[in-house]
Amino acid sequence: MNLARVAQILGMTESRLQGLQETIIRESAWPEPRLLRFEKEASGVEAGTVVFENGDIAFGYPKIRRPLFLAPAIERHFSKAVAVEEKMNGHNVRILSVSSEMVALTRGGFVCPYSTEVARRLVPEEIFLKHPSLILCGEMVGPENPYVAKEVYPTDSIDFYLFDVAEKNRKKTLGVHKTHELAERFGLKATAFLGQFQKDGAAEKIRQIVVRLGRQGREGVVLKDPENQVPPIKYTSSATNCSDIAVGFQYYNDYATDFFLSRVVREGFQSAEWNESEEERRKRAQRIGESILLPMIETIVRKRSGENIVQKVAIHVQNLQTARDFEYHLRRSGIRAIFDPPMPDDDGYRIGITKLVMSTNDKTQALLDGEMW
Amino acid sequence: MNLARVAQILGMTESRLQGLQETIIRESAWPEPRLLRFEKEASGVEAGTVVFENGDIAFGYPKIRRPLFLAPAIERHFSKAVAVEEKMNGHNVRILSVSSEMVALTRGGFVCPYSTEVARRLVPEEIFLKHPSLILCGEMVGPENPYVAKEVYPTDSIDFYLFDVAEKNRKKTLGVHKTHELAERFGLKATAFLGQFQKDGAAEKIRQIVVRLGRQGREGVVLKDPENQVPPIKYTSSATNCSDIAVGFQYYNDYATDFFLSRVVREGFQSAEWNESEEERRKRAQRIGESILLPMIETIVRKRSGENIVQKVAIHVQNLQTARDFEYHLRRSGIRAIFDPPMPDDDGYRIGITKLVMSTNDKTQALLDGEMW
Repeated sequence: MNLARVAQILGMTESRLQGLQETIIRESAWPEPRLLRFEKEASGVEAGTVVFENGDIAFGYPKIRRPLFLAPAIERHFSKAVAVEEKMNGHNVRILSVSSEMVALTRGGFVCPYSTEVARRLVPEEIFLKHPSLILCGEMVGPENPYVAKEVYPTDSIDFYLFDVAEKNRKKTLGVHKTHELAERFGLKATAFLGQFQKDGAAEKIRQIVVRLGRQGREGVVLKDPENQVPPIKYTSSATNCSDIAVGFQYYNDYATDFFLSRVVREGFQSAEWNESEEERRKRAQRIGESILLPMIETIVRKRSGENIVQKVAIHVQNLQTARDFEYHLRRSGIRAIFDPPMPDDDGYRIGITKLVMSTNDKTQALLDGEMW
Repeated sequence: MNLARVAQILGMTESRLQGLQETIIRESAWPEPRLLRFEKEASGVEAGTVVFENGDIAFGYPKIRRPLFLAPAIERHFSKAVAVEEKMNGHNVRILSVSSEMVALTRGGFVCPYSTEVARRLVPEEIFLKHPSLILCGEMVGPENPYVAKEVYPTDSIDFYLFDVAEKNRKKTLGVHKTHELAERFGLKATAFLGQFQKDGAAEKIRQIVVRLGRQGREGVVLKDPENQVPPIKYTSSATNCSDIAVGFQYYNDYATDFFLSRVVREGFQSAEWNESEEERRKRAQRIGESILLPMIETIVRKRSGENIVQKVAIHVQNLQTARDFEYHLRRSGIRAIFDPPMPDDDGYRIGITKLVMSTNDKTQALLDGEMW
């Protein structure tokens, strides 16, 4: 690897790059291709940025910021118009071809064996033959997404939706219009384009869209500058906030505090901005309360009746090696999971996965036994 | 000060005691008497333990642990019977006489000027003339409690309720029966004694008591071993959990995360242990949701209409110097507060205090302006 060239592309000095090795930059030798990952942001290089052995660089996908009060945020952030796309709820991947092999990178910059198999099934190779530098940024969603299983999308397995396009060795992405053009040209699915509005009045139109998406159990929207001059921002529905809270509290000792506050604060600002009536506010509050308490009580009652508290998901693979690799990948990501024996299925195998939520499981048992909090 | 003697009473070596100085042990030279305080627990000595200049030692009041599932906790913790007292919601003080001056110590081991004035008004000096070693452990409660203002107790100002008795230079407290005897003998109020029950069946009786207290807006109970052989434990009502959550979310960016999770987990276990119906669970969940969201929305709406988000309390002092001292005491405790000009009142002055909750105030404004979370 030519360090001087890599440093130049990353926009830092060679000595700075060397200084980050082993602290911010980690090596990942498996699965192939070998790569270096930025575990955290450093010198303006996003976390998740990857430098492959052959010198190809995939910049990390930038974190999308979130306003809580939409109208003034749109006014401040955008210059003229706002393009609205659906924000989908799954996991973010970057798909690219490295030394002629298609791979899917997780947000953190690991090659995910399962996402890679899915990508190879869904993305035509032709795309990278014609454009070897392309990086397809998108969301993998569906009930067979083992990170975030969701039934609300039109797939009973897992699907890939393009939401942006980048190029190797370039930090910038190509923006909303080029993304949809590319998706159409190569027959890829893209996140739904829900309209483009002038700044004035956009907040009200977006409110209507978000309410409708919420009714369908969908997550929300990403707002983009049609000219791609400012970064996108995101805004979500009450339904998705509550659904996240419910999952968090089902496994209250593992996940609840991580994200709870930000989600209820979003609810508070949404209600205030939308000038809800007292009755609507009360209903929203009750919905949040139910999302918190009822899943938690269910967990306690299940544990009291002798069940283990675990999280069950399933994947479908064409190749059994993918499942074995994915098992190892989850382990290195710090997720403890037990894989069921594979069940032959059309065109491959279905494999149930039991993710252990040790902290909630053990804490609930201890508290039921009369231990102190 | 005789270090060797102090170390012996604290149960540690002299060199260990010296080693703790300036890290765990802090000096407080104001208000008189000068003292050393344990800022954290160390070598089995509770946080809040105080060594006065004259050598008197007041051990910190032990933290009372909390079970979430009551019946098995009572079974494990107590040997035969359980005495039940009301847990009151105010601030914990230790009142004692040092070099013939009565002082009130906060939980952390500071002399609180306001609590000291209140103590001198409410506690007969006779008690310390007869028993110079006594330490009265109790709760200061009422609407003029500037730390935790509560209207539910039978006072329109501030009152002191004894809940335990200790002695200088001794770690152990004297327990429930001696406490009530002493209170009666000297005409002090004590926290209500709500009954003594055999272990079996106690949980159900306590449930009834806690439900009744909750209906009155009161906090809950402290369960004590009548023989004082094991430490007390505490258990609170749903009403107090929700009321704490409501205050937390009114000032969501200052306080909300501190204590939120523990309170909703208490609610979950209480509902499970009490085998509530689905309807009761839903109501409890809705109550929690309303305690979270409605105060937060009120804060957002108030800020949007131009109000500053602050917390208003009031105190009543006999001596204006007490108010000036208390202002300094709050500042050193890290609380930013503005004191109104004193208003002459029967037997002293009433002083409004505006506590600033800067983080919530500023964050709410920023978010209303369209800044990102």
